[in-house]
Amino acid sequence: MTDHFHDVHAAAAFRDDKLSKVNLHESQHMFCDVYCLRPGQVQKIHAHEGSDKIYHALTGTSRVTIGDVTRELVPGELAIAPAGEPHGVENASDAEATLLVVMAPHPSFGG
Amino acid sequence: MTDHFHDVHAAAAFRDDKLSKVNLHESQHMFCDVYCLRPGQVQKIHAHEGSDKIYHALTGTSRVTIGDVTRELVPGELAIAPAGEPHGVENASDAEATLLVVMAPHPSFGG
Repeated sequence: MTDHFHDVHAAAAFRDDKLSKVNLHESQHMFCDVYCLRPGQVQKIHAHEGSDKIYHALTGTSRVTIGDVTRELVPGELAIAPAGEPHGVENASDAEATLLVVMAPHPSFGG
Repeated sequence: MTDHFHDVHAAAAFRDDKLSKVNLHESQHMFCDVYCLRPGQVQKIHAHEGSDKIYHALTGTSRVTIGDVTRELVPGELAIAPAGEPHGVENASDAEATLLVVMAPHPSFGG
């Protein structure tokens, strides 16, 4: 595929030591990553004052927190963390999980 | 589901007269829509100077153009139109198609 077209599942790559983030695109406007979580891997709850984030479940089951709500997210489901809203994700299942994650604007592009 | 969690497939809704865009989230930072295309429906090629757009195929087969490349996009594949790059999508198949579309920043929020 060219740089502008991606097979999201083929891009997935896991790490043993922590959640893996595979970047597909970034600019000042946004980043688009595939988050790859083995069982037990976590992105701790945090917030970004100036950026929105979307989690879109691709495979497996992820446990996503937005504000004071925590839910299991399965493929076809999507969670949105508006700017300033605390959010995080963990894989509390016994199988690998992947999510498409878009954040806009990019919180640290070029910096 | 709460406002921050969505079942993307359940949100899909088609129109007879044109491509349907079902908004899941919008702010100044981005919009996130489900594009629903019946056979023959088209988003003409256009460009946004200040925003990136992502097309992520959910169901069916869509024909996506980014710059001078046109490809069939099937579920699990994703296409990125960086700011300024001409892009568009059509359903040239004989079945319905849906895509998750994220654009950042929102080109017309509140305006």
